[in-house]
Amino acid sequence: MPDPACRARTALAPLVALLALVACTAQAATVARVESPGQVLAVELDLSGEGRLSYRVQRFGEPVIDDSRLGFRLRDSGTLERNLALASTATNSADRTWEQPWGERRFVRDHHNELRASFTETIAPGRRFDVVVRVFDDGLGFRYEFPEQDGLAEAIIDDELTEFVVHDPATAWWIPAGEWNRYEYLYQRTPLDQVTQAHTPMTLRTDGGLHIAFHEAALVDYAGMWLRRTEGQRFRAQLAPASEGWKVRRALPFHTPWRTLQIADSAASLYASSDLILNLNEPNRLGDVSWFKPAKYVGIWWSLHLETETWATGRKHGATTANTKRYIDFAAEHGFRGVLVEGWNPGWDGQWFGNGYDFDFTRATPDFDIEALSAYATSKGVHLIGHHETGCAVSHYEDQMDAAFALDERLGIDVVKTGYVCDAGQIERRLEDGRVVREWHDGQWNANHHQRVLEAAARHRVAINAHEPIKDTGLRRTWPNWVSREGARGMEYGAWGNPTNPPEHEANLVFTRMLSGPMDYTPGILSLQGRGQAIQTTLAKQLALYVVLYSPVQMVADLPENYARHREALRFIEDVPADWADTRVLNGEVGDFVTFARQDRNSADWYLGSITDEHGRLLQVPLSFLEPGRTYTAQVYRDGDDAHWRDNASSFVREEREVTSADVLTLRLAAGGGQAIRFVAR
Amino acid sequence: MPDPACRARTALAPLVALLALVACTAQAATVARVESPGQVLAVELDLSGEGRLSYRVQRFGEPVIDDSRLGFRLRDSGTLERNLALASTATNSADRTWEQPWGERRFVRDHHNELRASFTETIAPGRRFDVVVRVFDDGLGFRYEFPEQDGLAEAIIDDELTEFVVHDPATAWWIPAGEWNRYEYLYQRTPLDQVTQAHTPMTLRTDGGLHIAFHEAALVDYAGMWLRRTEGQRFRAQLAPASEGWKVRRALPFHTPWRTLQIADSAASLYASSDLILNLNEPNRLGDVSWFKPAKYVGIWWSLHLETETWATGRKHGATTANTKRYIDFAAEHGFRGVLVEGWNPGWDGQWFGNGYDFDFTRATPDFDIEALSAYATSKGVHLIGHHETGCAVSHYEDQMDAAFALDERLGIDVVKTGYVCDAGQIERRLEDGRVVREWHDGQWNANHHQRVLEAAARHRVAINAHEPIKDTGLRRTWPNWVSREGARGMEYGAWGNPTNPPEHEANLVFTRMLSGPMDYTPGILSLQGRGQAIQTTLAKQLALYVVLYSPVQMVADLPENYARHREALRFIEDVPADWADTRVLNGEVGDFVTFARQDRNSADWYLGSITDEHGRLLQVPLSFLEPGRTYTAQVYRDGDDAHWRDNASSFVREEREVTSADVLTLRLAAGGGQAIRFVAR
Repeated sequence: MPDPACRARTALAPLVALLALVACTAQAATVARVESPGQVLAVELDLSGEGRLSYRVQRFGEPVIDDSRLGFRLRDSGTLERNLALASTATNSADRTWEQPWGERRFVRDHHNELRASFTETIAPGRRFDVVVRVFDDGLGFRYEFPEQDGLAEAIIDDELTEFVVHDPATAWWIPAGEWNRYEYLYQRTPLDQVTQAHTPMTLRTDGGLHIAFHEAALVDYAGMWLRRTEGQRFRAQLAPASEGWKVRRALPFHTPWRTLQIADSAASLYASSDLILNLNEPNRLGDVSWFKPAKYVGIWWSLHLETETWATGRKHGATTANTKRYIDFAAEHGFRGVLVEGWNPGWDGQWFGNGYDFDFTRATPDFDIEALSAYATSKGVHLIGHHETGCAVSHYEDQMDAAFALDERLGIDVVKTGYVCDAGQIERRLEDGRVVREWHDGQWNANHHQRVLEAAARHRVAINAHEPIKDTGLRRTWPNWVSREGARGMEYGAWGNPTNPPEHEANLVFTRMLSGPMDYTPGILSLQGRGQAIQTTLAKQLALYVVLYSPVQMVADLPENYARHREALRFIEDVPADWADTRVLNGEVGDFVTFARQDRNSADWYLGSITDEHGRLLQVPLSFLEPGRTYTAQVYRDGDDAHWRDNASSFVREEREVTSADVLTLRLAAGGGQAIRFVAR
Repeated sequence: MPDPACRARTALAPLVALLALVACTAQAATVARVESPGQVLAVELDLSGEGRLSYRVQRFGEPVIDDSRLGFRLRDSGTLERNLALASTATNSADRTWEQPWGERRFVRDHHNELRASFTETIAPGRRFDVVVRVFDDGLGFRYEFPEQDGLAEAIIDDELTEFVVHDPATAWWIPAGEWNRYEYLYQRTPLDQVTQAHTPMTLRTDGGLHIAFHEAALVDYAGMWLRRTEGQRFRAQLAPASEGWKVRRALPFHTPWRTLQIADSAASLYASSDLILNLNEPNRLGDVSWFKPAKYVGIWWSLHLETETWATGRKHGATTANTKRYIDFAAEHGFRGVLVEGWNPGWDGQWFGNGYDFDFTRATPDFDIEALSAYATSKGVHLIGHHETGCAVSHYEDQMDAAFALDERLGIDVVKTGYVCDAGQIERRLEDGRVVREWHDGQWNANHHQRVLEAAARHRVAINAHEPIKDTGLRRTWPNWVSREGARGMEYGAWGNPTNPPEHEANLVFTRMLSGPMDYTPGILSLQGRGQAIQTTLAKQLALYVVLYSPVQMVADLPENYARHREALRFIEDVPADWADTRVLNGEVGDFVTFARQDRNSADWYLGSITDEHGRLLQVPLSFLEPGRTYTAQVYRDGDDAHWRDNASSFVREEREVTSADVLTLRLAAGGGQAIRFVAR
């Protein structure tokens, strides 16, 4: 019997060679191929003799991803992975540059070649789907698209069978998926073949020095993808489950998120390749979002984690009118736009963790005069930042959110921090019959919840900064009011101190979590001290984090009284912007160190941030990013010569010098240290 | 009994804290300490309770080298490592810049702090020695100095006990020492604790990302140091033996070579740190050496390795008058200064390998009219390059060398390639009584032989390019007529093809062998073909090697008739200089890839060379080394889009574009490929 692929319509195009005709045997045959614009990466789709579909990835002609299976286990209509024939292919190319309303860079280039390969089952029920691949020089994305078709009105996906088989031996940086603490784990560095089940982004470095990150883009109305290792260096998509027992239920037509691979020769290039996550998302659907102002903010927050104040009402209640006024005054004095107040609303006095049914998002506690405070803030050019902790009573929150955002809009509150504090898999969803079931933070239902919040907020010109969120898959391009989120171990672990984040933590984050998008890490703890163990950082490193860890809402997280003791260092935090015209990664190694240069979007100034792990570093940095021929005053905030995170963390020097683009700076970072520089254009 | 160190005279100086007073117990005590100028590295000397001496190295306060023993086993006077007391310390600092007559950069900065610690045996015979440490921010050197003293007129060193104990787990790149093939091994990459006995430079990368290279500087009248692993990550100096059974015999006063550690955060910085090898050598003793002209050369050489011509006289003899004229014409036509002729002299017709007693270095074979050829060369602005293969009959060569160099001087031959082809340990030395004994290429006697050659050559204004040499320890600073050498697997292995050098070979060399100094690698085989297996390189990579592998005498190694088929590529070889005003390493990983930018010493032009191993690479390179505000024409010689070392190695593109220092180039290197660029200043 001839291979069904042999009957496929051929569509030889410049970018795609339809090779099925060559090998119409029982062996696997490459049926379609697409190369990146610079002929760096190539993706091939194969059909085996039994019509089983797989893909592989090559770079410069050498294997990166070996034959990896594609397909689904669908409820009712059965497994969809064999007896497939290629029906047609189509190709497309793009080279366009688009503008971000805010971001790490103003202009993003989208340069890729696309292959669409349409497959049909050769046996009943004759289901059809497309595989769409977009290949960039520094990575790729592919997704499944199910067109409208007879006999398949909806798909109930029990499992997505997509595999990722890594060719070369590799080291992985990863956190476990499907565990209770969501994304809040320290990154492990292990041989790739010792990973169990990982969240994305998962980052690898092969023995040959290639850097690869697995993630997904445009996770909409679908379940988040975990990566489960099945054998050796073979991984399979493991979708977060739904309470119904399946993973995803969708009416046709629909498409999956993009499964993405970023592939680069260095850690620095890997970070830069993250633009492909945005490029694989749909353009802005909100139109003008200039009402959102990237900015720094302070808040009644660190004191709560220090337990010197409480969310709950009573003697130690943080969110009082008087205390908030103090923060507003502090923010106004130093030019910080936002004041976050946690514990402002009823619901905190009982056991709210994972049980947020007492939360009211439309009125304040009696000791918090929200009307007067918002007016006072406005009079000083400051805006309150809202806080919507759900305690995972998510349907309960959805009942109120429209009214809550209306209140925010009226009071000039244009950023809201949301929260989903409960163990993973404990998101509470009320069904239409009133029963309550539990969902995963990254399951299909909660993915859709986040969309509902985003759209409700957008109607009221409110931006969302979600904590304990679903992972970032670049949706900020489409809904640019999704400005930041948590989704990793943030600075709060430094307050708790049990244990604190180790010195390598941020150098891990940059090349893993941060590949996915902005993080509200809440840096700037210049006191260097939580409740227990001291924070494992130098003072200068706290400043550098404002440049290193991108977020358009960037917290100035320490107590006002602590900043009063660090006026010289505070100058950098006052100056550093939260919105950038351009971003360059000057050097870095995963988990070791990294140096960023970013250009202010509203001036000709540049900023540099460099951080290291527990090892001191001496880094040579050419200032080639500066405008040639222009002189800049470099305001340097560096570790003191005797600084060390363990026993001399506050040792710190501020100094100035004149520099030009022809200079090469030597950055001396202490163990656990960092360096921050503002380059003031003259 | 009080520790003898407690009686030491204290000498507290700004750079050195004499800490012996603190801990006068039976425990080890730090008796002296010196930090690098930027407080990056610190070296501490310890005396144990039994007066045993050791050192350790810290970087940013964290251990890099753990307690490592110092001392000697001396014949007659016994082991010198216990019962030591600190007699005195002295410190010194230097920050000076000196000029090289030729090199990778014109000006070299020597910025270090020095500690001299003088020790005395507290028991008979009361021997004395100093340990001198020089600490730079990117490495250090230390040596032993034996002052003149009663009762010890000479030292016969049976073993040097210096240890190097690496603190962090590390990967090593190394070649075996004490094996038959001298330095001509492929670099192995293994865990550090799987090294057996290695030559220096040996390069490590710790799990924390620190790069370390062990080597030695100023190896004069001493035996070369191998590194023998004794346990775990503990290494001990293993000196190359002398025929007498000892390792070294020296009259007092004398000092050892510097034992050096280069320590940097990246492979690129490790390469840059090699200046310390030169800084630890003595200044130029020859004065004006402007008679040496860094230049490219061609030669009757590749044909010999292809076996289409022979060294031996007869029908296929390469070194004939007519054939040499052809090479002189080719050199003159393309602007290459030198013409090497191997096989020009008697001695090649028998079994000369390891048996060079038939070699005559003062007259040519009858079919090689050396007088006419040198006159013809001079008339065309070309210079013959001499060839002195000894076949390891080294004393036999020494008998003739002064006359040989006099002949060279008379004929305008100002560079001589020497050779020592025999197995390691088979250097033939004639004793005064006429007996012949065998020495190691890197033993004390042959180290002194090289010095004798160098000094004889200098008297006749001849520069030396030694093959099968002793390793380079930076003596070119002191004797700048030692211009290059081999001492690794060169291109000749590509002719033999059994097996050829693998694609990673040059990316290994850069970060190991090349740390020690120039290498006469003989690149430019554009035919890409030896006798057997094709060379594992693309064509563009052959061009890039002229920038990547530094040598002031750089061969254009292929046959003239082969270059005639590659006129476009040959343009780069014509243009590229062999002498540089400055050198920058733009990126790199040991054994993976590297990119150099070098500035011509005689123009404002810059050159870039980038090479990779068996993996293709996409490298972002800011052109910040260019002069700001100036436009350059970038003449790019790159791999074709479909190039691959294995099956499409000749695919190659030459193209031009205008660039400035503000541009960032994307270098696309094919698997096994490279890229060469000339930036012509406008």
